[in-house]
Amino acid sequence: MKWRPNRHSHLTIQEQIVDWIKSRIERGDWSVGTKIPTQRQLAMEFNVNRSTVQLAIDELKADGFLESKMGSGVFVANNSWNVLLDKAQPNWQQHIESSIHKPNYHTIQLINEYEQKNHIIRLGTGELSPELLPTKQIEQSLKAISLDSKAIGYSSPQGSEKLRGILCNYLEKRGIQTDPENILIVSGALQALQLIAIGLLEEGSIVFQEQPSYLNSIHPFQSSGMRIISVLRDVHLADTLRRLKRKRQSLFYCVPTLHNPTGNNWSVEERENFYNVCKELQIPIIEDDVYHELLFESSLPAIKSFDTSGQVLYIGSVSKTLSPGLRIGWVVAPSPVVRRLADIKMQTDYGSSAFSQEIVAHWISSGLYERHLIKLREQLRKRATFVEEILEQQFKKIATWKKSDGGFYIWLRFHEPIVNKTLFLNLVNQNVLINPGYIYETRDLHHIRISYAYASFEELKEGLNILLELIQH
Amino acid sequence: MKWRPNRHSHLTIQEQIVDWIKSRIERGDWSVGTKIPTQRQLAMEFNVNRSTVQLAIDELKADGFLESKMGSGVFVANNSWNVLLDKAQPNWQQHIESSIHKPNYHTIQLINEYEQKNHIIRLGTGELSPELLPTKQIEQSLKAISLDSKAIGYSSPQGSEKLRGILCNYLEKRGIQTDPENILIVSGALQALQLIAIGLLEEGSIVFQEQPSYLNSIHPFQSSGMRIISVLRDVHLADTLRRLKRKRQSLFYCVPTLHNPTGNNWSVEERENFYNVCKELQIPIIEDDVYHELLFESSLPAIKSFDTSGQVLYIGSVSKTLSPGLRIGWVVAPSPVVRRLADIKMQTDYGSSAFSQEIVAHWISSGLYERHLIKLREQLRKRATFVEEILEQQFKKIATWKKSDGGFYIWLRFHEPIVNKTLFLNLVNQNVLINPGYIYETRDLHHIRISYAYASFEELKEGLNILLELIQH
Ligand SMILES: Cc1ncc(COP(=O)(O)O)c(C=O)c1O
Ligand SMILES: Cc1ncc(COP(=O)(O)O)c(C=O)c1O
Repeated sequence: MKWRPNRHSHLTIQEQIVDWIKSRIERGDWSVGTKIPTQRQLAMEFNVNRSTVQLAIDELKADGFLESKMGSGVFVANNSWNVLLDKAQPNWQQHIESSIHKPNYHTIQLINEYEQKNHIIRLGTGELSPELLPTKQIEQSLKAISLDSKAIGYSSPQGSEKLRGILCNYLEKRGIQTDPENILIVSGALQALQLIAIGLLEEGSIVFQEQPSYLNSIHPFQSSGMRIISVLRDVHLADTLRRLKRKRQSLFYCVPTLHNPTGNNWSVEERENFYNVCKELQIPIIEDDVYHELLFESSLPAIKSFDTSGQVLYIGSVSKTLSPGLRIGWVVAPSPVVRRLADIKMQTDYGSSAFSQEIVAHWISSGLYERHLIKLREQLRKRATFVEEILEQQFKKIATWKKSDGGFYIWLRFHEPIVNKTLFLNLVNQNVLINPGYIYETRDLHHIRISYAYASFEELKEGLNILLELIQH
Repeated sequence: MKWRPNRHSHLTIQEQIVDWIKSRIERGDWSVGTKIPTQRQLAMEFNVNRSTVQLAIDELKADGFLESKMGSGVFVANNSWNVLLDKAQPNWQQHIESSIHKPNYHTIQLINEYEQKNHIIRLGTGELSPELLPTKQIEQSLKAISLDSKAIGYSSPQGSEKLRGILCNYLEKRGIQTDPENILIVSGALQALQLIAIGLLEEGSIVFQEQPSYLNSIHPFQSSGMRIISVLRDVHLADTLRRLKRKRQSLFYCVPTLHNPTGNNWSVEERENFYNVCKELQIPIIEDDVYHELLFESSLPAIKSFDTSGQVLYIGSVSKTLSPGLRIGWVVAPSPVVRRLADIKMQTDYGSSAFSQEIVAHWISSGLYERHLIKLREQLRKRATFVEEILEQQFKKIATWKKSDGGFYIWLRFHEPIVNKTLFLNLVNQNVLINPGYIYETRDLHHIRISYAYASFEELKEGLNILLELIQH
């Protein structure tokens, strides 16, 4: 917040806080039903004692501006005695509740919120640690970038031609033969999923996936009225899919390399079998390949690399490797699909940041990117080993896990079904943030997604200790 | 395209082109039903004679790979004799046609497409000319930016705190009292509309607007199942709205300052009246204020500046002033609304480019932005005068218009209803691109939106000449 009480005013601090909150309510910034920040937050923001804030809030409650709701905080009251309140305020809460897009899971909203706080140990964050981001090098590279006036105008529908050309060469090394015409630049892999949801599927279509799944933690398909069906990828896959699909439109979403949250990899044979099954049934595949550059050992072929039927929509991104703040990803797909998704992208945000596109083009074409990846993999491997050693020493009796092959995650399985929302909240109270398994598979109470990519070595150790203690109570 | 024929190959150029096109079809990049580029485009891309391309395409047609469709181009054929084609290709065309989001109008798709070509005179483009963008200064400022590792990770839901703080001060000069907590950073104003559509309205809600309207040229609300209703903003406005709204949810979308496409401004009184009507009826207002900094004379107050009921969702952007390639805009709204839109933004693209946000923060806080605006307004005014003089000399007998008060546009009205798709296409044939009035009001055949912001002085003159000649025939 911007406002601070004025120590030299003739009004007391408490009076000033009361006036300020009133003005926010009057102006409608805090409309009826708004949850206001906690006393602790306000005291910190204003740099005053918590007791002063409490007195101000008590006064406003007595005057009917605010009300407490048991256990959930303080809200702007809907009080008919309240003369100040403008009766014509729109009912935003109702607007929100009846609108189309689903809200995020509460646990994920909390994660998004707590991730912003300092002093919190982020044990599950799917993001590189600030230490691992090549911040200074990116800053340096900004100096080397020369801008073209045309490039910083509205973009062509598929994104920067330069970047698409560079990606073509880059993808060739991944075994994917394509052409700039078949690439769409997007603002991260997540946006690719969103565009596919509204641009390629009718309502009631089926999106197949395996459990657990990253898709369960986000809602692009569900919010567009698609059904998500989880299936087992076993020898009966073809029969299962045929039976469930019938005549409906469908897609299969998968992360065959360094799966989120499990970290699993499909073998080459599994990839081929899977492709053949989907091809036979004409079920297009979304191959989400955002982690592949982080495999510690030799690379695995993308399913897209043996696509001979334009069946695979391939998604890549620099979020997991270079910087999520760039918001740059790409889709490789048949021409009609790319044109369609580009058309919708033009209708939703007129293209991705030209500056981010320039930076990515520079990093990939100059070789900076490849060199950075080599170092990054080494550092991630060290972190993985560090966490695995702690697990080995302290968690062996209560949990199992698989040694990491790369990426960010260890999918820690507890023998007992203890990973519930209470555990999550208790950990938050101790300043430790985890990604519980139930985000990725609703009924799962056995898993935690541990990320060794974000927290520092010390924090990882401390966080795991706190986790262990809490569980052992 | 990346591929070029090899002049040193033992195969002829024609053979190489045939093989290349076949490989694209086989691989599914050009799936059945794909429209392939024109002969002219291919000849240019490959740097070969058009006749060579034509022979290659004829051969492929004879073999059943391609087929011509009268008047619309050459397509990948669905030919069952064709042994090479993989029968398991997904039917992408069907996926596209049955999916949720509407395609762009054909005319707008054509505009998006032709805008990419060199040698075309863009007489309607709603964008600053490359000459008017402060490209070199932005490049310079990149050198001054120092990055913080935390800032280039995944963003907090509402966007960079730094930028929101800076915008608060900036908005204060526009008469808008707000707080960083009430600001959401978005990837351009268009995305704000998209988020409002899926985050604040139920299906079947009404979006009121005036005719003509920018909203008619984009589809965020229509694609989400909202009804767009155009009304007259006259003395009966309150009655009209009450009658049409009944018990349904609704919003009013307006551009009170430098309206797109008309360039009109509402007086202060009109703004107040309008606000009071909407407040009485509890109809929230979307105030799209992306052009206000381009008013030649003194500024007009934002409706948001007299909002005392949290009724106005205010939208700003740097696309029209600094660079559309940044993709940065903002929404100012009551807290529950901002939190809701932020939650959906996190679900669709995890935030806007951190780099773009840094650049905008730097430009606004350093004063570079204000200084740039002063020069920009001057240059736009010169351009407006230049175009108005041409109109005065040559179009006076056949059309009327209003002197521009700022921004980009002159809403040129022809006495005769001549502005139809044929005129649009005939002009394209002569390398002139216009924005016909029917994009903004379906049945309008009288208007062209002339933009003096994009084309060079020479091009403006030449383009208007070509337009005049074509009309006089
Ligand atoms: C499997 C998977 N796909 C996509 C994403 C989103 O990546 P981006 O930041 O490129 O949108 C993530 C990140 O959480 C992920 O784990
Ligand atoms: C009235 C109006 N609103 C919004 C936009 C979109 O702006 P942005 O580039 O910030 O998405 C435009 C640009 O065409 C416009 O004219």
